[in-house]
Amino acid sequence: MSNTRTAEYRAFDANTLIGYLAGIEVVAEILGESQWTANEVGDGNVNQVFIVEPAPGSEGTPVVVKQALPYLRVAGDDWPLTRERMRHEIAALERYGDLVPGRAPAVIHTAPEMSLVVMEYLAAHEVMRGPLMAGRTFPQFAAHVGTFVAETCFATSDLALSGPAKKTLVVERSNPELCELQEDFVFTNPFMESEENEWNPALDELVARVRADGALQVASAEAKRVYLTNTEALLHGDLHTGSLMVTNTDTRVIDPEFAFFGPIGYDLGTLFANLVINRLSHRVHTPDAAERAEMEAWLDGCLVDTWSTFARVFDERWQRHEGDGATPAAYWDFDGGPQAFAHRRAGYLARVLVDSASQGGCEMLRRLMGIVTVPELGAITDNDLRAEIETDLAAIARRWLLDAEQITRPEDLLVAVHEVIG
Amino acid sequence: MSNTRTAEYRAFDANTLIGYLAGIEVVAEILGESQWTANEVGDGNVNQVFIVEPAPGSEGTPVVVKQALPYLRVAGDDWPLTRERMRHEIAALERYGDLVPGRAPAVIHTAPEMSLVVMEYLAAHEVMRGPLMAGRTFPQFAAHVGTFVAETCFATSDLALSGPAKKTLVVERSNPELCELQEDFVFTNPFMESEENEWNPALDELVARVRADGALQVASAEAKRVYLTNTEALLHGDLHTGSLMVTNTDTRVIDPEFAFFGPIGYDLGTLFANLVINRLSHRVHTPDAAERAEMEAWLDGCLVDTWSTFARVFDERWQRHEGDGATPAAYWDFDGGPQAFAHRRAGYLARVLVDSASQGGCEMLRRLMGIVTVPELGAITDNDLRAEIETDLAAIARRWLLDAEQITRPEDLLVAVHEVIG
Repeated sequence: MSNTRTAEYRAFDANTLIGYLAGIEVVAEILGESQWTANEVGDGNVNQVFIVEPAPGSEGTPVVVKQALPYLRVAGDDWPLTRERMRHEIAALERYGDLVPGRAPAVIHTAPEMSLVVMEYLAAHEVMRGPLMAGRTFPQFAAHVGTFVAETCFATSDLALSGPAKKTLVVERSNPELCELQEDFVFTNPFMESEENEWNPALDELVARVRADGALQVASAEAKRVYLTNTEALLHGDLHTGSLMVTNTDTRVIDPEFAFFGPIGYDLGTLFANLVINRLSHRVHTPDAAERAEMEAWLDGCLVDTWSTFARVFDERWQRHEGDGATPAAYWDFDGGPQAFAHRRAGYLARVLVDSASQGGCEMLRRLMGIVTVPELGAITDNDLRAEIETDLAAIARRWLLDAEQITRPEDLLVAVHEVIG
Repeated sequence: MSNTRTAEYRAFDANTLIGYLAGIEVVAEILGESQWTANEVGDGNVNQVFIVEPAPGSEGTPVVVKQALPYLRVAGDDWPLTRERMRHEIAALERYGDLVPGRAPAVIHTAPEMSLVVMEYLAAHEVMRGPLMAGRTFPQFAAHVGTFVAETCFATSDLALSGPAKKTLVVERSNPELCELQEDFVFTNPFMESEENEWNPALDELVARVRADGALQVASAEAKRVYLTNTEALLHGDLHTGSLMVTNTDTRVIDPEFAFFGPIGYDLGTLFANLVINRLSHRVHTPDAAERAEMEAWLDGCLVDTWSTFARVFDERWQRHEGDGATPAAYWDFDGGPQAFAHRRAGYLARVLVDSASQGGCEMLRRLMGIVTVPELGAITDNDLRAEIETDLAAIARRWLLDAEQITRPEDLLVAVHEVIG
């Protein structure tokens, strides 16, 4: 699928992109023989995304083109980033195609020299965060995303791969630049004086209090250690509800440019934190009490079901002893071995849940106090109302971080939510 | 220092080595103008080691030459290993020269194409294990080795390096083949049916019992997970008393070909386990009760002092906030920040101690039940006497593995020793 020409990188605009795509046979065939139009629709920080469409009424099919820019868009040209991240995104999308067919957009064409990928256009899908804010629910979502995390993480962990195969993959997928963004913007800068931090002006006191909370700072530093050192599995690396596209019956995972070997709890915790942020934001976004209660119950259930699906699928994979993992079937071949093996699997998953709580706690806090907030909070125009929600979120995050070791079931994550909001 | 000729690799013998060294100016100058002799003295499994000496009475100085072989010597030609490991050994020796001058042999010449390094000959030094078995003590050792682990590990951890710098080094120092040896021979094969395992025939029942001990198998699997996934610092990777050369006043760390990014507790636990094995072996090797008690007390103190030095030096380094580590000084800049920072450092070191216990537990067990035992045990000709010691070691290892979380001071490691031996 790769374009082997060694043309020099250039950032496309809508016009130059169409000329470029016309020269790529597989793409031209899909778009068909009409006058194409391209619209830049990206809202990410480091890439541009185009929808390229054939003329209305013609026989072609639209495609999506994503191109990495050589800088971080939100910060302007003075924050250079290499385009290396597109290499990671392409590798991840192709891996998803193998491991979880249908859970990511299909890859049509890749052009590493342009840091560009042409993908299936998901006409019926929406980025999940918006519809969630509007109170819509997605009955298949928890099963889909839980399976996605389980399958992709298990297959890239030491439980499935031999030591040498795993280490080779860790080297190939080392992603220092994108990891550094998360290190700084999730784990460090929000917790200290740093010029790019932004927050709700009504939150000044809370931010000062959080940053002077010794126990919380210690727990966040430990969460950062786990993020930095635990090469457990090849993660998505930015699995919030803006990296998920949904319909009533389908779920697609997009934007895996942050993919790296990290703790599984980072992906799950990021998702759980964003579900909880969304949940609390319905106090504003869903004024009707009954509708709001229904949405909150769905979000709570979604969190628990995502974990349960993840844990079930991960555990099933492990029981099959496929591949060449760390403890082969023979390791458990003794009287009482099946029970010990079950105990081992449960213990492993219990630790992933603990990690999810502490990683998710940092994700929640950074969305209040760091450089990048989320639409759920940013869209609230009443700063005092927003601060009430954010104050509760900070208290929940504190529980997730400080009581992580006591969280033994996914429901315990919700106990913290319910006790804080009263 | 590198020889840039691209000669083809060949394994030297004593004669061909002398011809080769004659062509290397820096080496020839050190050896001087006499008739040199070379003697192969290696007792490792994957390398040959030569002492090359000038003629007696001549003015030259001897050197040591270490050359990696393309197979694992103990298993014969059918177990191929690449010579890649010499690249790791050379990089580690050069790093030690920078970070802990004088704690490793000085490097005179490296020849990557021959997988060969020429080093300072340590005329007065002995490999530590032998003199320890003979009941000799080394008053500076704990301070030296504790400082060595602290300095090398701190400088290569996320506490000193930026995320990108650390990840770049993790990629450079990925060492899958040598790690696989430890994965198999330390953490997996000893714990299950595997044809290359060997043990004292009087130990059959114990080996069967250990392998059917569900709780122990679970704890060992968790220790292997930590070994496989925690890229905390650049370790030596095989830090037992056969990788240390000593005099009464000096300590040198040798053989770092296993160097890789792993949990600091692996290096410390390996060393602690070997000190405890040595300690118990004096029941046979030091028949005089008073002498034995003195040696045992020294070994106990050595373990505690090694930890204490390590912890003190590591903590001092961290307090200086040099480099570009995970939590900069500004992260702790708040009322109560110094106390929180102290709490963080103590918590970090507490986890390293827990890791040391469980990693050390696996090291002890594999020396009883795996492919490579240690001279302390192998030299005991009375199998029943040997089995008594080994049975106690297995019980100590079990305590270190199962009670690791309760080990909060280095003395707790010794409490397990003393309670087992009664």
